[in-house]
Amino acid sequence: MSAFSNGDVFVGETLGTAALILLGGGVCAAVTLKKSKAMNAGWLAITFGWGFAVLIAAYMTGAKSGAHLNPAVTIALAVKSGDWSQVPLYIGSQLLGAIIGAVLVWLTYLGQFQANKEPTLGIFSTGPEIRNPIQNVITEVIGTFVLCMAILTLGTTKGLDSSGMGTLIVALTVVGIGLSLGGPTGYAINPARDLGPRIVHALLPIPNKGSSDWSYAWVPVVGPILGGLAAGGVYNALF
Amino acid sequence: MSAFSNGDVFVGETLGTAALILLGGGVCAAVTLKKSKAMNAGWLAITFGWGFAVLIAAYMTGAKSGAHLNPAVTIALAVKSGDWSQVPLYIGSQLLGAIIGAVLVWLTYLGQFQANKEPTLGIFSTGPEIRNPIQNVITEVIGTFVLCMAILTLGTTKGLDSSGMGTLIVALTVVGIGLSLGGPTGYAINPARDLGPRIVHALLPIPNKGSSDWSYAWVPVVGPILGGLAAGGVYNALF
Amino acid sequence: MSAFSNGDVFVGETLGTAALILLGGGVCAAVTLKKSKAMNAGWLAITFGWGFAVLIAAYMTGAKSGAHLNPAVTIALAVKSGDWSQVPLYIGSQLLGAIIGAVLVWLTYLGQFQANKEPTLGIFSTGPEIRNPIQNVITEVIGTFVLCMAILTLGTTKGLDSSGMGTLIVALTVVGIGLSLGGPTGYAINPARDLGPRIVHALLPIPNKGSSDWSYAWVPVVGPILGGLAAGGVYNALF
Amino acid sequence: MSAFSNGDVFVGETLGTAALILLGGGVCAAVTLKKSKAMNAGWLAITFGWGFAVLIAAYMTGAKSGAHLNPAVTIALAVKSGDWSQVPLYIGSQLLGAIIGAVLVWLTYLGQFQANKEPTLGIFSTGPEIRNPIQNVITEVIGTFVLCMAILTLGTTKGLDSSGMGTLIVALTVVGIGLSLGGPTGYAINPARDLGPRIVHALLPIPNKGSSDWSYAWVPVVGPILGGLAAGGVYNALF
Repeated sequence: MSAFSNGDVFVGETLGTAALILLGGGVCAAVTLKKSKAMNAGWLAITFGWGFAVLIAAYMTGAKSGAHLNPAVTIALAVKSGDWSQVPLYIGSQLLGAIIGAVLVWLTYLGQFQANKEPTLGIFSTGPEIRNPIQNVITEVIGTFVLCMAILTLGTTKGLDSSGMGTLIVALTVVGIGLSLGGPTGYAINPARDLGPRIVHALLPIPNKGSSDWSYAWVPVVGPILGGLAAGGVYNALF
Repeated sequence: MSAFSNGDVFVGETLGTAALILLGGGVCAAVTLKKSKAMNAGWLAITFGWGFAVLIAAYMTGAKSGAHLNPAVTIALAVKSGDWSQVPLYIGSQLLGAIIGAVLVWLTYLGQFQANKEPTLGIFSTGPEIRNPIQNVITEVIGTFVLCMAILTLGTTKGLDSSGMGTLIVALTVVGIGLSLGGPTGYAINPARDLGPRIVHALLPIPNKGSSDWSYAWVPVVGPILGGLAAGGVYNALF
Repeated sequence: MSAFSNGDVFVGETLGTAALILLGGGVCAAVTLKKSKAMNAGWLAITFGWGFAVLIAAYMTGAKSGAHLNPAVTIALAVKSGDWSQVPLYIGSQLLGAIIGAVLVWLTYLGQFQANKEPTLGIFSTGPEIRNPIQNVITEVIGTFVLCMAILTLGTTKGLDSSGMGTLIVALTVVGIGLSLGGPTGYAINPARDLGPRIVHALLPIPNKGSSDWSYAWVPVVGPILGGLAAGGVYNALF
Repeated sequence: MSAFSNGDVFVGETLGTAALILLGGGVCAAVTLKKSKAMNAGWLAITFGWGFAVLIAAYMTGAKSGAHLNPAVTIALAVKSGDWSQVPLYIGSQLLGAIIGAVLVWLTYLGQFQANKEPTLGIFSTGPEIRNPIQNVITEVIGTFVLCMAILTLGTTKGLDSSGMGTLIVALTVVGIGLSLGGPTGYAINPARDLGPRIVHALLPIPNKGSSDWSYAWVPVVGPILGGLAAGGVYNALF
C-alpha cells in the first residue's frame, strides 16, 4: 500500500467511494422510487448498475489510491502484504466517501424522495430476505471472500497490467457476485457501502423513510471483514 | 485538442455525433414505437443501447477528432488543457451531427413514424419525470460531472492507450450513468444530444408527434455545461 | 484480402458462418420455441445472443480468414482495398456456412421442432414488422452501413491489434445495432445470414413451419449489399 | 498441460471449479428460490451469471492450473496436445471442486433451502425440457463442441495473451452458448458441473428436494465428453 501518499489515499478513496455509492445507491433509487424512468427495471439492472459503479469509481481513482473503495479489500490486501500502516486512513476515507455518495443519491433523486411514501432503507443499505444473523453473516463472508480472492489473484494474470483492463474484470466480478450470491442479503460485501449510507438514511429528512434497522447494521460490517481476512489468509497459503 | 486538424474535427465530430444519435435515438424508437420488434424491451435495453451507441460512434471517429461527441466533454477537456481555440468548431460539428442523426432515426423507423398515434418527443429528447427546473439541472450536473470526470481521469490508467480499450470503458461508463442516474430526467448529459434532435422533432412531419416542449430545452443544455465545467475544475484541483 | 490462402478462406468462412448462424439462429429458437428454457427471454436476449454469436464465430476463425462472415463486410473491404479477387470465394463459403449453421440449429432444437405448432421462419430469417420494400431496404442499408463503417474504421484505433480485442468491439457493435436499428426489419445486415437459413427453412421437414416468404427474400440481400458498398465508398472518401 | 505441477493443478482446479459451481449454482438458486431478491430474474440473469462464474473462477486460477474447470475442456486440450498424463488429476480435482462448490451454494442460501417447498434439482444439475436421450446428447455435444473449439482456437488470436483478456472472451462465449444453445437441456457442457452437484443434491438434507434424476445423469457426462473429443479432432484437422 505504501505506493500511494497519504494525501492521495485520502483523495482517491473519498472521491472513489463517493462515486461508488452515488452510482450504486443511484441504481437502487432508480429501480425502486416512483416517478423514476427505471422503476421496476429489475435485478439485472441492479447488478449491472453496481458493477458499473465499481467500474466508474475504480477507473477514476485507481491511479490515486489503488481504488480499494472497500474496507474488506483493504484488509485482504493488508493480510497479503503484511503492511497495515495505511489501513485506518483507507477505511476512514472510504466511510467518508460513502457518506458523501449517499447524500448525492438523495440530491440526484430529490424530487422523487420528496414525494416518497414507502420505506427507503433498501436504497441506502442492505437487508436480509430471511433474518437469521448467523446465516446472513455466512452469506456475506462467502460473497466477500470471492470478491477479495478475485482481486488478490488478479495480479497473477499476465498482461492485465499492461492492457489496463484489470478494473473491468473486477467490475464484472461484482456483477457476477451480485447475480449469484446476492439473493439472501443483497450483497453488502463492503462495510463502508452499508454503514455510511445507513447513517445518511438515519439523518436525511425523507418523508415516510421508515426504520434504519440498526439491529442488522453489524452483519454487513462483520461479515465482509471476516471474508476479507479469510481471503487474505487463503491467498497467502495457496499462492 | 490541437492534435487534430480543423477538417478532421469537422468530419469526425459530425459523423460521430450523427452515429451516436442515430443509435441512441434509435433504441428509444425501437423500445417505444408500435410495430417495432423491440417494443417494451425495457430500461436495460435503453441504457445498453445508448452505451453501445457511444461505443460505435467513438471507435468510428476517435482517430479523426478524439470523439468528444458532446459539448460538455469538449468544455471539460478545454478547462483541463486551457486551450479553447477549437471549442466552437467541436460544438458546432456536434450539433450538426446530432441533427443529421435524428433525421436518420426517422428514416430508419419511417413506417413506424408514419403510423404513429402518440407523442414522440421521448424518442428525440429528454424530459423529466417530476418537473422542477432546479432539481432537474442538479441531476444533469451530477450525471455529466461523473461522465466528464471518468473521461478526464481515464488517461491516468496505465495501459488503456496501448490496448485501445479506453473507449469501451467510456461506453460502459455511459451505461452505468444511465442505470444509476437516469431515472429523474432521462440523462441528457450532452447538450447536443438533446438540442439537435429537439429541433428535428419540431420540424419533421410526424403525425400526432405532440409538443417539442421548448420550455424545458434549456435544462439539458445548461446542466451538462455546468457539469463539464465543474469536472474540469475539480480534475485540475485534484489530479 | 490476399493475406489468406484460398483454402484458409474456405475453411474459415464456412466454419465461422456456420458457427454464427448456429448461435444466432439458436437464440431465436431458444426464445421462440415452446419447451425451451429461454422461451420469452426477450429482445435483450436476442440482441446479446446475436452479438455473442459474432464474438464466438469471429474469434474462432479470425486467424484463418479474417472472419468476414458476411458478404456485405466482404464487399465493403473490397471497395476499401480495391481487390475483388477473393470476393466470390468469400461469399460462396459464407452462404455454405450459413446453410450448415441453420441445419445445426434444427438439430440442436430437434425435439422442440418436432413438437412445433407455429410458423418458424422467424427462427431462420428476418421479416419486417411493417411490409414496405423501399422502407425495409432503407432500414437494412442504414444498419449495414453502420456495421461496415464500424469494421472499416476499427483499424484506425491504435492498440486493438496488439490487444486482440478488436473482435469484441465488433461483437458489441452488433449488439448495439440490434438494439437500436433492429426494430423495423429484425436487422439481417448480412445477405448470407438471411438467405442461407431461408433455403434451409424451405427444405426442412418441420411440422406447421409456415411460409418461407420468398417475396421478401431480396430485401435482406439487396439492402445489406448497398450498405456495404456505401460504407466502402464513404470510408475511402473520408479516411 | 505439463506447464503446471501436479500440486498446482490440484489446487487450481479444485479451487476454480468450486468457485465456478458456487457462482453458477448460486445464480440458479438466486433466480429459483423463494425469499431471494433475484427470484424470477429470468434467463438473461442465469446466462450472464454462469458466464461471469467462469470469468471469476478462471481468472482466479488460470495462473495455477490453466483453469480448465471442465473435463470436456481437459479432454479437448489433451487431444490437441497428445499429452494425457495429467488428465485424471485434472478431472478428479474438477469433480472434487464441483462437490465443494455445490455445498457452498447450499450454505449461502441455507435459510432459503430450509424453507424450501419445491424440487430443487434444477439449482444443482441440468435436465431436459423434452426427455429424449439421443436428442439431449446431440444438444450437449453441439454446445460443448462450440465451447471447446472456441477455447482451442483462442490461441490463434494475436494479442490476447499479452493483454490478459482471453479469459473474458471465454466467459462471454459461455454466456453466448447459454443464450443460444441452452434452451433444450440447460447446457451442462461440463460433466463435472453436472455430476458433482447431483451427488450433493442426493446427499444434502433439503426438505422437499425431490428426485436427483439419476436416469438422466449419464447424458450431461457423455455428451460433453463426446463434444470435447470432437472439438480436439476437428481442431487438429483444420488448424
